[in-house]
Amino acid sequence: MSSAATSATVELTGHLMDTGILARVLDDVLEYGGDYRIESIDIGREHQDESTARVEVRADDHDLLERIVMRLQVHGANAVDPGTATVRPAPSDGVFPEDFYSTTNLDTFVRLEREWIPVDRAEMDCGLVVTEQGGRPLVRNVPVSDVKAGDSVVCGAHGVRVEMTPSVVRGEEEDFGFMSSAVSSEKPQALLVHQIAERMREVKAAGQKVLWVGGPAVVHTGASPAMVRLVRAGYVDILFAGNALATHDIESALFGTSLGVDLSKGSGVPHGHEHHIRAINTIRAAGSIAAAVEKGVLTGGVMHAMVEAGKPFVLVGSVRDDGPLPDVYTDVIEGQRAMRAELPGVGFCIMVATMLHSIATGNILPASIPLVCVDINPATVTKLADRGSAQAMGIVTDIGLFLEQLARELAPEG
Amino acid sequence: MSSAATSATVELTGHLMDTGILARVLDDVLEYGGDYRIESIDIGREHQDESTARVEVRADDHDLLERIVMRLQVHGANAVDPGTATVRPAPSDGVFPEDFYSTTNLDTFVRLEREWIPVDRAEMDCGLVVTEQGGRPLVRNVPVSDVKAGDSVVCGAHGVRVEMTPSVVRGEEEDFGFMSSAVSSEKPQALLVHQIAERMREVKAAGQKVLWVGGPAVVHTGASPAMVRLVRAGYVDILFAGNALATHDIESALFGTSLGVDLSKGSGVPHGHEHHIRAINTIRAAGSIAAAVEKGVLTGGVMHAMVEAGKPFVLVGSVRDDGPLPDVYTDVIEGQRAMRAELPGVGFCIMVATMLHSIATGNILPASIPLVCVDINPATVTKLADRGSAQAMGIVTDIGLFLEQLARELAPEG
Amino acid sequence: MSSAATSATVELTGHLMDTGILARVLDDVLEYGGDYRIESIDIGREHQDESTARVEVRADDHDLLERIVMRLQVHGANAVDPGTATVRPAPSDGVFPEDFYSTTNLDTFVRLEREWIPVDRAEMDCGLVVTEQGGRPLVRNVPVSDVKAGDSVVCGAHGVRVEMTPSVVRGEEEDFGFMSSAVSSEKPQALLVHQIAERMREVKAAGQKVLWVGGPAVVHTGASPAMVRLVRAGYVDILFAGNALATHDIESALFGTSLGVDLSKGSGVPHGHEHHIRAINTIRAAGSIAAAVEKGVLTGGVMHAMVEAGKPFVLVGSVRDDGPLPDVYTDVIEGQRAMRAELPGVGFCIMVATMLHSIATGNILPASIPLVCVDINPATVTKLADRGSAQAMGIVTDIGLFLEQLARELAPEG
Amino acid sequence: MSSAATSATVELTGHLMDTGILARVLDDVLEYGGDYRIESIDIGREHQDESTARVEVRADDHDLLERIVMRLQVHGANAVDPGTATVRPAPSDGVFPEDFYSTTNLDTFVRLEREWIPVDRAEMDCGLVVTEQGGRPLVRNVPVSDVKAGDSVVCGAHGVRVEMTPSVVRGEEEDFGFMSSAVSSEKPQALLVHQIAERMREVKAAGQKVLWVGGPAVVHTGASPAMVRLVRAGYVDILFAGNALATHDIESALFGTSLGVDLSKGSGVPHGHEHHIRAINTIRAAGSIAAAVEKGVLTGGVMHAMVEAGKPFVLVGSVRDDGPLPDVYTDVIEGQRAMRAELPGVGFCIMVATMLHSIATGNILPASIPLVCVDINPATVTKLADRGSAQAMGIVTDIGLFLEQLARELAPEG
Repeated sequence: MSSAATSATVELTGHLMDTGILARVLDDVLEYGGDYRIESIDIGREHQDESTARVEVRADDHDLLERIVMRLQVHGANAVDPGTATVRPAPSDGVFPEDFYSTTNLDTFVRLEREWIPVDRAEMDCGLVVTEQGGRPLVRNVPVSDVKAGDSVVCGAHGVRVEMTPSVVRGEEEDFGFMSSAVSSEKPQALLVHQIAERMREVKAAGQKVLWVGGPAVVHTGASPAMVRLVRAGYVDILFAGNALATHDIESALFGTSLGVDLSKGSGVPHGHEHHIRAINTIRAAGSIAAAVEKGVLTGGVMHAMVEAGKPFVLVGSVRDDGPLPDVYTDVIEGQRAMRAELPGVGFCIMVATMLHSIATGNILPASIPLVCVDINPATVTKLADRGSAQAMGIVTDIGLFLEQLARELAPEG
Repeated sequence: MSSAATSATVELTGHLMDTGILARVLDDVLEYGGDYRIESIDIGREHQDESTARVEVRADDHDLLERIVMRLQVHGANAVDPGTATVRPAPSDGVFPEDFYSTTNLDTFVRLEREWIPVDRAEMDCGLVVTEQGGRPLVRNVPVSDVKAGDSVVCGAHGVRVEMTPSVVRGEEEDFGFMSSAVSSEKPQALLVHQIAERMREVKAAGQKVLWVGGPAVVHTGASPAMVRLVRAGYVDILFAGNALATHDIESALFGTSLGVDLSKGSGVPHGHEHHIRAINTIRAAGSIAAAVEKGVLTGGVMHAMVEAGKPFVLVGSVRDDGPLPDVYTDVIEGQRAMRAELPGVGFCIMVATMLHSIATGNILPASIPLVCVDINPATVTKLADRGSAQAMGIVTDIGLFLEQLARELAPEG
Repeated sequence: MSSAATSATVELTGHLMDTGILARVLDDVLEYGGDYRIESIDIGREHQDESTARVEVRADDHDLLERIVMRLQVHGANAVDPGTATVRPAPSDGVFPEDFYSTTNLDTFVRLEREWIPVDRAEMDCGLVVTEQGGRPLVRNVPVSDVKAGDSVVCGAHGVRVEMTPSVVRGEEEDFGFMSSAVSSEKPQALLVHQIAERMREVKAAGQKVLWVGGPAVVHTGASPAMVRLVRAGYVDILFAGNALATHDIESALFGTSLGVDLSKGSGVPHGHEHHIRAINTIRAAGSIAAAVEKGVLTGGVMHAMVEAGKPFVLVGSVRDDGPLPDVYTDVIEGQRAMRAELPGVGFCIMVATMLHSIATGNILPASIPLVCVDINPATVTKLADRGSAQAMGIVTDIGLFLEQLARELAPEG
Repeated sequence: MSSAATSATVELTGHLMDTGILARVLDDVLEYGGDYRIESIDIGREHQDESTARVEVRADDHDLLERIVMRLQVHGANAVDPGTATVRPAPSDGVFPEDFYSTTNLDTFVRLEREWIPVDRAEMDCGLVVTEQGGRPLVRNVPVSDVKAGDSVVCGAHGVRVEMTPSVVRGEEEDFGFMSSAVSSEKPQALLVHQIAERMREVKAAGQKVLWVGGPAVVHTGASPAMVRLVRAGYVDILFAGNALATHDIESALFGTSLGVDLSKGSGVPHGHEHHIRAINTIRAAGSIAAAVEKGVLTGGVMHAMVEAGKPFVLVGSVRDDGPLPDVYTDVIEGQRAMRAELPGVGFCIMVATMLHSIATGNILPASIPLVCVDINPATVTKLADRGSAQAMGIVTDIGLFLEQLARELAPEG
């Protein structure tokens, strides 16, 4: 079980002891059916020091070994002797070679000959396609639906290396990563809001964008006015959402008070209220949300504020949608492409009250972008972290009061 | 199945159509194995009018009929021909006669001869004991554990009548009873806090007391400073809690910053942290919470504020308690008695973040006292209403932000 | 406020008292800003009798009145004097006239001249389009995305009538509608499974189809073998699902034991396990799930069993999907069309462990088809009922044990 | 910050890398305000080998250092140079000396002079009292409420050592500890039931007892008949519960079919049903549950089966109780004593559907007793583990189907 052909040594560096990353690496080896021997641990003696561990991974056959080594990269563990990448052509459109390298959401580098070439962007569960630009090799991260027959795809784990960015290194164990240092024992929820506000100010000061992902509860909990203030104050650079948030926002703007009682109950608006389908029809008649704003049909709410502020939004539909609004991508793969196109420049991502679109965004987001997920349901936060967005920091709280507090910090009313 | 001996006619009045009370009455008849015939409905034509319905209830035998008629009183339905009460002696201490009348939490009246005598207080699942005072009959509501052998106990449903107070009449269907009229479509959570604040001001202005029931999450969510401000501003007249709230509050006051990180995680404090058991030991050494305040051992937190403000608290233990604190009633029946003793004069009850003590308080509270239950877990609110506290209004929100907002309304910082 | 132009009388029949439907009708009138007067109630005296109520609805203006009357049809309330339908042309593709009649999920009839014409199918939140076939008028239920410019669309509430089917009439109040009669006090969960099995046998005996809607938890809870037995025994005529159920099922069939530990934890499989993306790639390479079965690539699991049994499935994608599998509709509107196309002949629908696809199916399902929703999360069941699928019966239980028990009833192992 | 007076070296042995224990130890040092330096790690190279780590812990003052070293014992970390124990008299009844050693739930040893003396039993958050028996020192684990003035209490962390038993060593990271080896990818829920059944058979074969802790949902989910079969087959040696389980069980036995519909709804029985208070009164009249069985008043249900089988039960009340039953301890501290008295001989503990009594039992249970917690609510399981019962294995499933399956395994019906 330990012939040269079936073992490889990986190395990982960081706060291995107090983050539990090493435990996870070892767990994964066993879970995948391999075995390990810890070759060495160079301990960070003081608590702020980093450690480095070398682990020999063994497997019954070559394929399994490759899969394990690939898997360990999710935790930032790289092969000590990475070799050079193997490249094979995609057999047909939308299909990778069988042993394609499946990406993580970490910064990734590929060695084709001698040099390490950085991959253009980080997204998990994609493939790496090698092309040329101006005589120099270029490596692109490509989802399976976008690969073309004949594309040169990196296969196996050789010649691929990942790098953990600082924000991720400790994030795996702590819910509030960047915030943890300044936390006092008093009013933590209010303090958390304050810290998020601080972080947003920093991100904006650095010329980066704040990406919001939102669900319809933003409207149902009565947080629309707070959200509108945040949009106007410039803290919502991009909005990802589904048909529901936009529809209920517009419905609320068009049919206003009639839904008052439902909002007050804190429960979702019953489907049977056909107002939402009339709201959709009204916007369809206008042609688009922007057109409805221009024509004076839509005069309030979050979507109106986004249009007025000239900020982009990407609405991607789902199978439970009515209508949908004309701005909604009904093809989810096209929707994903539109979302990806908005990521460059994003320095912070905040997800409020949506599981579907939060996971969808988590899927395409590099691990280097700090991410806060706010929901009254702890399951949403947990699910996000389970699916690979290790940098996610979760806050379980009331959306309405949270956005109200955040707006008070960032966009105090005149 | 419809002989005279086995049927009775009950009458109920109120907003029968739009509250669903009639539906519930009819359901209960069937569920208990009886049958019904609606004799008449005098409809409140306009939506603000009350209706009156008369329903003939039938059962196979007399005992079942009695049980059904008693049961329907929970919904405010009284027999048309109530007769006079039957009274039988309690067979021994702590035991009612077999067919004792089991109380509701509504205002109740007993007819012994001709006159209707009001029962001294309303509490559900108790018995009615008839005594005399100054030559006049007196009817007391007595829990089974307090009845003495030979006490005259009302038996069967004859001669007992209940009355719904206005706050209950509509409460059964609507989560926010008294608040519903003024609700607008904007920021309902913030508005709810505002309305609760308003109600508390009214209750205080009327010379009544505000009763709080709280769980340890008040401390864990960092809401202690807000709670302290509310105590100082006079909005916490009585506090019902368990060992946990007081212990964690005192632990936080004594060991302060050390738990900062835990508080910041929004999660409960792990049991293994032995700080809480040291906090308990410290107070045990002082003799009581009040003694610890007096001696300067305890200088901050909610319990300290209660002692300083001279406001009473009742701490009742549970089987999972460590210690407990010397102030805690370890006998739960004695604890219930202590809680009951604080109820006179209460005009409003607010329950935050505790299922056990909320249900315990709901059990002894008359239905006429308005009741708001605030918890991030919807199950707590639902369970409270299921158990008979029909007047409960539930708010599912974050305790930390909620108390912060409430303190901002009622006790703005200088 | 009561001029002839602004009032209308509606009538509703059924178990008005004990189902709470009348209360809901009256609530809705007030919630929409109208007012009411109960003209008469003809009471079903015995508890099994139906009642009939006539309610005069009043509104400040004609448009509001129309909206209220339309709204009340959700509860089966029809105008006493329905008049004849108004028809207006659709202004452009995908847009209804502004005052279009928005459908319920009840059996619906339209009166164009004298006769009542049944609508071809029931689906909520759609429009009614009038066409001709062989010289006779035909009324079709059309979603907004499918309407064409110039189509004749029914507008306003005049000339439209709905009918409640028996399964719905009582379903609104009771979780287990059809099952309630035979329920005993012993082992209700086991009994519920038995009753669902009985119902499935009846539906099959009547030549109708059983529609399943499933989420990936079917695989994660280890229920695949039970589900396969149900497919083989003929109790799964159609399957609606997303990319996730099919992918994890195929992944489990292709990579088998490797995920054993995760399955055993009862938790979802972490996203980072790239097995699922390899499984997707394998099926993409084969061309389709059926092709993978034919080529011997896929030899086990639920999807394999469906292909072998020649039973149709509709997989509709969502924005969080990886891949997806080649069989998945990436356009959600096309996916909805494909789902609708499978509905004829369905006599029973069971939803297990999926919120997204359950709500999507609830949206297009007529209220006359009995519907059971099984989930360990109570919120899924509640949300489904909130959105208008009043006939939904919810069972909160463990999916793995539930399907195991159901398979034991319907497909005992040789 | 590193003078000799304020540092101590601790050692821990086990699967440090893959269980995350080391990470937790280091976290706790920082959280308590100390600092650390890893002196050495002797790595278990192969994955089945144990590792040993030595960590120097530093603190600003002696008291903090003591507290940290004590805290680390929760994870099985002992001081390398433990010294001998300091003993001080308890200042008064029910009060420990200020710096008393607060226990963990691990096997504990105290060195008074040279020898290590084993503590009589393990229970967390208690104190250690030194006495003599036959000229030999004896160390007893004593809860704060039971200590007497003048008792010799171990103070500080010197001279105290803990030992992790094998079942705990790996339990901290894995939900199903002892079960994990045999888990296959198929039907995990059914398999888990099978494994629990196996473990119960082993425990019984070894002459040990099976302790059950149950909540009223055992009755509400219709699992009573299954539970009765388990009692009769000898797999319920002791039952810990509250007033509710026993009351609803007895109510169901006395009033049988009347609650059928409620049971069928899967929801809890509404409080207003006064049947439970009548059931309580009936048992109070009989004198006790056993007396009611003897007199033929109580003829069925779980409590009846326990009495008939001659098996002990401990019912401890809570503040929300009605009545309570005469067998219920109303003083929770006495209830805890009664529970403790039943622990000797217990080899396995299973908790079903109760948070309050599960945590109470977890508080007094040694970590060496394997513990399974079954609940449909994930929060119960999580909370138990959070509070220090590291050996708890959680199963989130339906109680009714679970007990049915378990009874099928262990007590197949003739």
